[in-house]
Amino acid sequence: MKTLYKLPLLDPQSTEGFKAVQLKGESPTNWSVNSYTLRGGLQEGVQVVEINNGKLSFAVLPTRGMGIWKGQCGEVALGWDSPVKDPVNPAFINLQDRGGLGWLKGFNEWFVRCGLNSMGAPGMDTVLDYSGNEFEVPLTLHGNIANVPARAVSIEVTDEAIIVRGEVDESMMFGPALRLNTEIRTEFGSGAMRITDTVTNLGNNPQEHEMLYHINYGAPILEEGARLVAPFKQVAPRDPRSTEGIDTFGEYGAPEIGFVEQAYLYDLAGQADNQQTITMLRNAAGDQASLLRFSLKDFPCFTQWKNTAGTADGYVTGLEPATNYPNSRRFEREQGRVISLAGGESRTTNITIEALDSKEAVTAVETEIRTLQETAQGTVHPQPLSNFSDC
Amino acid sequence: MKTLYKLPLLDPQSTEGFKAVQLKGESPTNWSVNSYTLRGGLQEGVQVVEINNGKLSFAVLPTRGMGIWKGQCGEVALGWDSPVKDPVNPAFINLQDRGGLGWLKGFNEWFVRCGLNSMGAPGMDTVLDYSGNEFEVPLTLHGNIANVPARAVSIEVTDEAIIVRGEVDESMMFGPALRLNTEIRTEFGSGAMRITDTVTNLGNNPQEHEMLYHINYGAPILEEGARLVAPFKQVAPRDPRSTEGIDTFGEYGAPEIGFVEQAYLYDLAGQADNQQTITMLRNAAGDQASLLRFSLKDFPCFTQWKNTAGTADGYVTGLEPATNYPNSRRFEREQGRVISLAGGESRTTNITIEALDSKEAVTAVETEIRTLQETAQGTVHPQPLSNFSDC
Amino acid sequence: MKTLYKLPLLDPQSTEGFKAVQLKGESPTNWSVNSYTLRGGLQEGVQVVEINNGKLSFAVLPTRGMGIWKGQCGEVALGWDSPVKDPVNPAFINLQDRGGLGWLKGFNEWFVRCGLNSMGAPGMDTVLDYSGNEFEVPLTLHGNIANVPARAVSIEVTDEAIIVRGEVDESMMFGPALRLNTEIRTEFGSGAMRITDTVTNLGNNPQEHEMLYHINYGAPILEEGARLVAPFKQVAPRDPRSTEGIDTFGEYGAPEIGFVEQAYLYDLAGQADNQQTITMLRNAAGDQASLLRFSLKDFPCFTQWKNTAGTADGYVTGLEPATNYPNSRRFEREQGRVISLAGGESRTTNITIEALDSKEAVTAVETEIRTLQETAQGTVHPQPLSNFSDC
Repeated sequence: MKTLYKLPLLDPQSTEGFKAVQLKGESPTNWSVNSYTLRGGLQEGVQVVEINNGKLSFAVLPTRGMGIWKGQCGEVALGWDSPVKDPVNPAFINLQDRGGLGWLKGFNEWFVRCGLNSMGAPGMDTVLDYSGNEFEVPLTLHGNIANVPARAVSIEVTDEAIIVRGEVDESMMFGPALRLNTEIRTEFGSGAMRITDTVTNLGNNPQEHEMLYHINYGAPILEEGARLVAPFKQVAPRDPRSTEGIDTFGEYGAPEIGFVEQAYLYDLAGQADNQQTITMLRNAAGDQASLLRFSLKDFPCFTQWKNTAGTADGYVTGLEPATNYPNSRRFEREQGRVISLAGGESRTTNITIEALDSKEAVTAVETEIRTLQETAQGTVHPQPLSNFSDC
Repeated sequence: MKTLYKLPLLDPQSTEGFKAVQLKGESPTNWSVNSYTLRGGLQEGVQVVEINNGKLSFAVLPTRGMGIWKGQCGEVALGWDSPVKDPVNPAFINLQDRGGLGWLKGFNEWFVRCGLNSMGAPGMDTVLDYSGNEFEVPLTLHGNIANVPARAVSIEVTDEAIIVRGEVDESMMFGPALRLNTEIRTEFGSGAMRITDTVTNLGNNPQEHEMLYHINYGAPILEEGARLVAPFKQVAPRDPRSTEGIDTFGEYGAPEIGFVEQAYLYDLAGQADNQQTITMLRNAAGDQASLLRFSLKDFPCFTQWKNTAGTADGYVTGLEPATNYPNSRRFEREQGRVISLAGGESRTTNITIEALDSKEAVTAVETEIRTLQETAQGTVHPQPLSNFSDC
Repeated sequence: MKTLYKLPLLDPQSTEGFKAVQLKGESPTNWSVNSYTLRGGLQEGVQVVEINNGKLSFAVLPTRGMGIWKGQCGEVALGWDSPVKDPVNPAFINLQDRGGLGWLKGFNEWFVRCGLNSMGAPGMDTVLDYSGNEFEVPLTLHGNIANVPARAVSIEVTDEAIIVRGEVDESMMFGPALRLNTEIRTEFGSGAMRITDTVTNLGNNPQEHEMLYHINYGAPILEEGARLVAPFKQVAPRDPRSTEGIDTFGEYGAPEIGFVEQAYLYDLAGQADNQQTITMLRNAAGDQASLLRFSLKDFPCFTQWKNTAGTADGYVTGLEPATNYPNSRRFEREQGRVISLAGGESRTTNITIEALDSKEAVTAVETEIRTLQETAQGTVHPQPLSNFSDC
């Protein structure tokens, strides 16, 4: 592998600021990298890195914790339409808004990380103050990381792939000091990207760590008759509302104004040797899909979020691989699912997100998933499990 | 009407950022438009559009929800002196500060919108979470809209008028998604501006909507002997403190250190055909005034806010046309005064604000108001009304 | 004294923004002034003024309330390593985070002001609303001033000294409106700087005022065997945890992972005539030190904060001259230690911070402190005093 370009877009040691670059080439595909800063309203100052590998394009948002705004692969649009129209600069977000739901004022990306120290439903939890005394604080929905700007961003173009890297600090004195280093890599002409995240505890003492990837799709993949295909050992509804839809949990309806969200918690099946698994959202015709490949060692918990509400309210489903289920951290700790990182410890994970735009490709993956499914019992619990959710 | 100039100052589709423009002309009056960005301290990044129609000038603040900082019409200064010296970038405002009074850390404009989903006194209210469950949240003073930056701003100069337009989104997933489109128009050589606001529910489900225009005046119009002239069916003090001043509610005293604010709630009289009404603040001599013309169909409730405190504490009165009274939203809902906008529904309102700088003009308007007053009983309630205020 | 350069770096009357200047000279020492703006991550937009008088250099942060990030005097590094790596733009800080400990997400400076209206431990306190009614609000750790950007910054170079000035407003309507005017002055070739702060109540009514200088040191001055040398009438541990270390309160240990902070509250001895006093942190060998000279009339209370935790968690001690002890404001008020500034009143204080880099200099100051100590009894209370702390 030969590096063609390697340059910082944002260097915290320099005063130059985020660089607007335009790179492009014709070999091996017509690729490009464009970086720029959004202006106006709540998006004032939001940095964007647009990457096009010749087939797949996507827009990374350094200012929003290296999330990914939206993507496109041929005719397959990746992302969704939120009532929040622009990517929001975290300077304008108060996570404590609306009883800890302030995160929802910036929620419109295709790929959003939830974490690093907590994620999931808002709820009270016990933390330590500067004197080591326990006290109760309200944790806000899905944590901080999507609303922390990246401090170092760089781009590399090799003869094989385009790689964007960034570093995001969720740090404080007398509390968790966690750093995310992310690398998003896509090969020329591929419909896939691979996201390699390393989370490091910068402090000396152990800290808790939770991570969930909120990967969201609206039309056109999501539509009436679209399906989530996933190999599972067991699946359970999150709450009574989700119980109502358990018979058709893998299928999606048309936009329905007033539809109340449903969520299904999966214990996925993985390959025996490396615990690799696949989940795929496919459209009704089976000629468009997006799939995730990851290891259950990295993300043992998977949540399917179904929000087939009215188009203007956000017609969307979320595929959510995670270190644990998105319940309150206190509940997840009780279930033994919250990771603890020792002082200085790092944890590296990988996920591949791929878009498919042909019937053949979709069918092949369905076969792959079916094969995995055959290794597991595939229990569907009609009611919530008390160790899966606290609802 | 012929358009001479039409240009975007801030285009969310462009990465250019807010444009510093200087337009001017000599016909039909010496007019000008200047836009620029404030720097330093809490005003860092605050955008300003200064408009001068040859007689009236005023400064719009896109960054603060298209509020109007201050104006000038001949010798008539429009606005007031707040302890908050600079226009504050919303990035530095936490509305939850000081028990929900954080709005007061940015309050110094002549014209401030309160809304869009709530306004008035802070208080607990019930909202829905992402699962449609009710929960209680503290609503902060006067809502969000004054602290949301406009996402699209443009200027138009015709052969008759200067028009500035802006778009402000108060949006979230799983909650209200309301958009304000405002047009502020002033004709050459006029002492007046007309503000046309359209609020649209971008979502599919009904959402509540409250709007109050907090239009504020200090010296020189406000002075000992200044008066508010308004045609009313009935007026009532808001609370016991306001009851103390009910005998002279329409008159103003000199600055008085330690003066505690008083507020009077008006049920105004309007013209029989179109419900148009007028309220005017005039100085003691009756040769300076500012008046509001609006329809009671748009703004059925009117509040007079008297805060004749010491000069350094903010010697100011507010004229406040609104969709309802500025009580907690919960109280206003109980009184049936909170508007509900259906999914996709828009509501458009108009108000004209005019400055007068001659005795003749002031007298003429007083006559106009007196004529309106003669159509109504003009009841002055000595005590708060239980359906007007919850104090 | 002759002025060589005098220029604004940030003028709120101008739209030019913070100026990047590079001044330097060779006489009487090789001095320089550099100003620039940091970019990337949480430091996006943070302004820095670096001053080098030929011996002592330091970096002032206008965006963080004119705090001082770090300094250097020969081989003596002034400052510390926090888990928070970059200076944080207040736009990204929510002081209400983590139960009122949000201040800790931006805490990494050598010199940080705590105040102006409150400082110390978070806690409930009673304030007045816009109607003069009392209500309870949670005060956050160490107040607002370190997270308010300066609105006016200027630099002056004379034939004797370099002076940087700034103005920081902690203001609101219906609440405290306090302005800090600071002047930081350093003479050519000196190891010292003098900070002159004037706090003015911009309003008409009395307002409470608290100020603490959080002056923080890590390695190399802080090390095993380092000592705080201070002349005291009495000293007491803040809480039970600090009681454990009372026998060695003046001495420091090596970094110790899991060390829980200790604090000692001093009633210092000062010179009989002008109440001038000195406190000094010196390294083990006694050839590096930093000392503070101030009057007990300005800062009657002094706190020593010992946080000899692991290096990655923040190995640091704070020397904290203050108007009162850093307990909750409610407790400090009960003890009669909270200052009230009348409407329009100003309060000016001075402090000199000096770095020493020779054994002779350190010894000379120790002698000076010993002389002062001989004028006082030097009582060491083994247990917390009920009027010094509420722990």
